[in-house]
Amino acid sequence: MRMIDLIEKKRDGQPLSNSEIRFFINGFTTGDIPDYQVSALLMAIYFQGMNRAETVNLTLAMAESGDMLDLSDITDYAVDKHSSGGVGDKTSLIVLPLVASFGVPIAKMSGRGLGFTGGTLDKLESISGYKANLSEAEFRRIVRETGIALAGQSKSLAPADGKIYALRDVTATVASLPLIASSIMSKKLAAGAGGIVLDVKAGRGSFMKTPDEARTLATAMVRIGLDAGRDMVALLSDMNQPLGVAVGNALEVAEAVMTLQGRGPDDIHEHCVEIAAHMLRLAGRGDVRTDLAETRREVDRALRSGGAYEYFCRMVAAHGGDLRQVEDLSRLPQARLRYSLPARQAGSVAVIQADKAAWAALALGAGKATKADVIDHAVGIEVHANVGDEVAAGDRLMTVHANDEGRLQAALELLTGAVQYSAQPVPRLPLFHGLVDGQEM
Amino acid sequence: MRMIDLIEKKRDGQPLSNSEIRFFINGFTTGDIPDYQVSALLMAIYFQGMNRAETVNLTLAMAESGDMLDLSDITDYAVDKHSSGGVGDKTSLIVLPLVASFGVPIAKMSGRGLGFTGGTLDKLESISGYKANLSEAEFRRIVRETGIALAGQSKSLAPADGKIYALRDVTATVASLPLIASSIMSKKLAAGAGGIVLDVKAGRGSFMKTPDEARTLATAMVRIGLDAGRDMVALLSDMNQPLGVAVGNALEVAEAVMTLQGRGPDDIHEHCVEIAAHMLRLAGRGDVRTDLAETRREVDRALRSGGAYEYFCRMVAAHGGDLRQVEDLSRLPQARLRYSLPARQAGSVAVIQADKAAWAALALGAGKATKADVIDHAVGIEVHANVGDEVAAGDRLMTVHANDEGRLQAALELLTGAVQYSAQPVPRLPLFHGLVDGQEM
Repeated sequence: MRMIDLIEKKRDGQPLSNSEIRFFINGFTTGDIPDYQVSALLMAIYFQGMNRAETVNLTLAMAESGDMLDLSDITDYAVDKHSSGGVGDKTSLIVLPLVASFGVPIAKMSGRGLGFTGGTLDKLESISGYKANLSEAEFRRIVRETGIALAGQSKSLAPADGKIYALRDVTATVASLPLIASSIMSKKLAAGAGGIVLDVKAGRGSFMKTPDEARTLATAMVRIGLDAGRDMVALLSDMNQPLGVAVGNALEVAEAVMTLQGRGPDDIHEHCVEIAAHMLRLAGRGDVRTDLAETRREVDRALRSGGAYEYFCRMVAAHGGDLRQVEDLSRLPQARLRYSLPARQAGSVAVIQADKAAWAALALGAGKATKADVIDHAVGIEVHANVGDEVAAGDRLMTVHANDEGRLQAALELLTGAVQYSAQPVPRLPLFHGLVDGQEM
Repeated sequence: MRMIDLIEKKRDGQPLSNSEIRFFINGFTTGDIPDYQVSALLMAIYFQGMNRAETVNLTLAMAESGDMLDLSDITDYAVDKHSSGGVGDKTSLIVLPLVASFGVPIAKMSGRGLGFTGGTLDKLESISGYKANLSEAEFRRIVRETGIALAGQSKSLAPADGKIYALRDVTATVASLPLIASSIMSKKLAAGAGGIVLDVKAGRGSFMKTPDEARTLATAMVRIGLDAGRDMVALLSDMNQPLGVAVGNALEVAEAVMTLQGRGPDDIHEHCVEIAAHMLRLAGRGDVRTDLAETRREVDRALRSGGAYEYFCRMVAAHGGDLRQVEDLSRLPQARLRYSLPARQAGSVAVIQADKAAWAALALGAGKATKADVIDHAVGIEVHANVGDEVAAGDRLMTVHANDEGRLQAALELLTGAVQYSAQPVPRLPLFHGLVDGQEM
């Protein structure tokens, strides 16, 4: 088998066989196939696409390019979640302890990568001492003893995906549906879960701009999971305005803790209840097989009762984090400068541009534009309004938390025009745009 | 400027500016732009194409990536030819001395590369002592003293083209019209000629299978040359059956010498007259500005008179070749085994598959499939018939010259069915399918 023949075949619009895909992935992982041939194939895939069988074969080949996590000594059915990434998305911090509080072990590995704000692990590292990089033995021990661990993704998990993603990133081949879907799902499949809930965002603050686009990506990922023998649900959630109030690492940890104590913003509370209910349904816990509405009520009670908060504290302690910062949120990193942005006029809030909030957070130092950047956990933005709120001129709309005057100024410029008003009442944005499951596939 | 932005632009079907093309070619030549980005761009070009301005800019950037040969101290107007490659194509061996015999200095650099039979230089190296690899000073001295030199292409000529071709060859991006046209023309432009005659083949023995395809390629190359300020003519010639009788290095040299002595096969004689007439017309020699037919008659006379043969001998001597092998063709390398293939039946020859003859010559060792292969100058095939000939069963159709029984057997298998017959008279194939010049551009 020769790589050039695979490139030619895909270039001409023919599907690759499973053995051809294995040849390509294994050869690239070992270094036998050079990156210049892989980038040509990726561009051919960009133009010609991949059918359902090719996409699942690619995903499995990437998943099996490294270690496949076996969680059978911990649980007979692991459940996992993935979010396609949004502005202010601290869902994992809340949902995972929440699900764990139902007795479902959570053994979660998260990636890092670049982004407007940090990933879940960067957020957790706002807490002094939180150790995200664990050996597999430590990771398993914490799950067994605590019921939940949230650690960094092992480099040996789906290494082919890492190599391919690095190449896509510099060859303008990121925006390919089968490549996006297989990249996400390869890590999920390698991480060992039997059931996976996907939270696919749609809107100006996410990669997919419309619910239709999000549904297309969700469908591709659900099909991969089903064909690989997993239980799958994808929720399509709105990402036109930031989720919750906080955008920034320590700010989001504080909001997550408040939500786990039953006093979080309504939108993030409801969002997390929905995600957790679907995870529990897949795991077959509670009254979930029969009634999703009843499960939602149970989950809501667990959030309000403090049971989920207790699991969060156990997790932080097991990872070596300083619990005093959780018990007293004012001990979390605090930015030196706070700047309030008032409403320019009275009216209904018509638009809050989540993407502008994201760029502003990045400018403040909350995320990484390049690998060399260092995250400032303290900085970020609080967005106090939601679309549909009635505000008076001068009402506080946002609070910017900064550690540097120049960065503050840059963030304020990026936020210019982020909020738009209407003289007419504006309906609230939905939290979800529907779901994709295995029903019609 | 960032390479990823260029890839994205081309991927999305937008034309690249001249400065973007220069950035890409210069960066790749110096090694600042990695091959994995270039191969992604090449695949995007494969799918999206390039417009006329992009193609000429690409060609000039590649031509100017190394030395530009300046022939002004030798002649005020150099003329060059290029053939797109065919089976039994020894045209350069004949046409170049023929044109030189009209007092037009010929300073010709040829590439080598892979192929079914050797290139022009490999053919000349059938003659003991012929030194094709010259310094630029030696090359210029021979042209000045002899009026003609035919040497290997300097590595410093269009080095970007060499690097890009090597990458296209392993990434399934060879078959792209703007990339083919710019690759050929970059070397022609760098080689310093003011007028260029292209011989673009069409048929089963060449890359372009139909006259329409050949015309498309010819048009692209003529446009590049015109936009770069050169005089251009492209002849579309038939390559369904081998050109002349001989296919193989020493066999082709012998046939070229006989043609230069006015006793070559009709098809190669006429083919060379036509190419030479157009070269002379561009160079403005003879009565050519006014009457192409008269130029053809002059050229025909020069072939028959032995004047062109004299220039061939001067060239061989100047390059250190053994003239005794030219004067006595039986002294050229001879294969140990000769095998005659008779006509299976009586009738008109309807088809002679040039591609099968090419594969058979390669199997005998006449060409290179990989860089490591060594050319056997003695081996090859003589095809004694042309399409349209009437033959009797048992008439000698081909002679296979081999040095190895195994290779002979392989060649004979590849030649199975290469000749097809008809009970009805079959018309002869045309030598040419027309021409493309600057008239309508």
